[in-house]
Amino acid sequence: MYPASLSKLMDELSRLPGIGPKSAQRIALFMVKRGPQDAQRLAEALLAAAANTKRCRECFSLSEEDLCGVCANAGRDHSVICVVEEPRDVLAFERGMSFRGLYHVLGGVISPMDGIGPEQLHLGELLNRLRGDTVKEVILATSSTIEGEATATYLAKLIAPAGVNISRLATGVPVGGDLDYVDEVTLSRALDGRYRVT
Amino acid sequence: MYPASLSKLMDELSRLPGIGPKSAQRIALFMVKRGPQDAQRLAEALLAAAANTKRCRECFSLSEEDLCGVCANAGRDHSVICVVEEPRDVLAFERGMSFRGLYHVLGGVISPMDGIGPEQLHLGELLNRLRGDTVKEVILATSSTIEGEATATYLAKLIAPAGVNISRLATGVPVGGDLDYVDEVTLSRALDGRYRVT
Repeated sequence: MYPASLSKLMDELSRLPGIGPKSAQRIALFMVKRGPQDAQRLAEALLAAAANTKRCRECFSLSEEDLCGVCANAGRDHSVICVVEEPRDVLAFERGMSFRGLYHVLGGVISPMDGIGPEQLHLGELLNRLRGDTVKEVILATSSTIEGEATATYLAKLIAPAGVNISRLATGVPVGGDLDYVDEVTLSRALDGRYRVT
Repeated sequence: MYPASLSKLMDELSRLPGIGPKSAQRIALFMVKRGPQDAQRLAEALLAAAANTKRCRECFSLSEEDLCGVCANAGRDHSVICVVEEPRDVLAFERGMSFRGLYHVLGGVISPMDGIGPEQLHLGELLNRLRGDTVKEVILATSSTIEGEATATYLAKLIAPAGVNISRLATGVPVGGDLDYVDEVTLSRALDGRYRVT
């Protein structure tokens, strides 16, 4: 019922994550209303990002260079590797600026339900990075979900022979979190992990 | 913190209606993960839609031709014009297939708050279409909002000298609507507009 090229754009937009048919229609009509310059700008940004973004050859985080800014930075602590699921997790740490070590992006978690086994993750490359004696500690920062925990357990066993320290992020009450809104499992884990103050 | 071209894409995406920074990040990472072919397809759809979609010269609905499919269709009832705010309203009627007349898209509503006066709407073009004696009725199908009602009142006065019938969509309880969920203003209007069944 809409002109063909507009329907096609709505189709393409509704393939994007979090965009339903209604949002796709809204965005397509917006783009048509704004005119060709805006469409051109967005199209160019899309093509440039897809063409220029690749994976860092060391940590598999996103980068426009062979080696990402973190791996290439001699000022970072190269003795600690923080293992995360996806590139977005690297950003979450970098926003806080509290971690000064390196990263390793797995590219997912082990999830038999989705058909993802250990062989689909960048595990061999992680083991390679543990050769030599530069790395002293590996922090397993996968999510606190069932798959994330299972992946961390699997990784801990896999890495153990390398003889490095292996740690996991603390579980507990979020800073600024109202106890009333914290679920009971988190609360019980926070109790287990309590620390003495005097 | 992300590669420059990826940050640029997130910036562009977050200008779209209904897309916040978090959705923009999600979509950008998805596009990068899917690779250049997908980005190319979306970019082409964007450019084609922006380049090929124009306004019908009669009714200002969206079309790839000078005259849209509705206006060009001799099988439609050319004696009734349904006046709507935006092209998406035309689609809403066309989905139902219950209206067989023509449309006229105003391009908005009179809204002093947003600085939109009658001169920004396609009103002169509507009056032109009422010349001659083809058109017998104008249905004012602007929204049932304050601005929509005010625009309808303004239009009714403007069109009156043309001597055509002027109508407005019925206000009432939506089909399938639970009375419990219908607001009191709608309910009171539905009461006012009640009709005899026996």
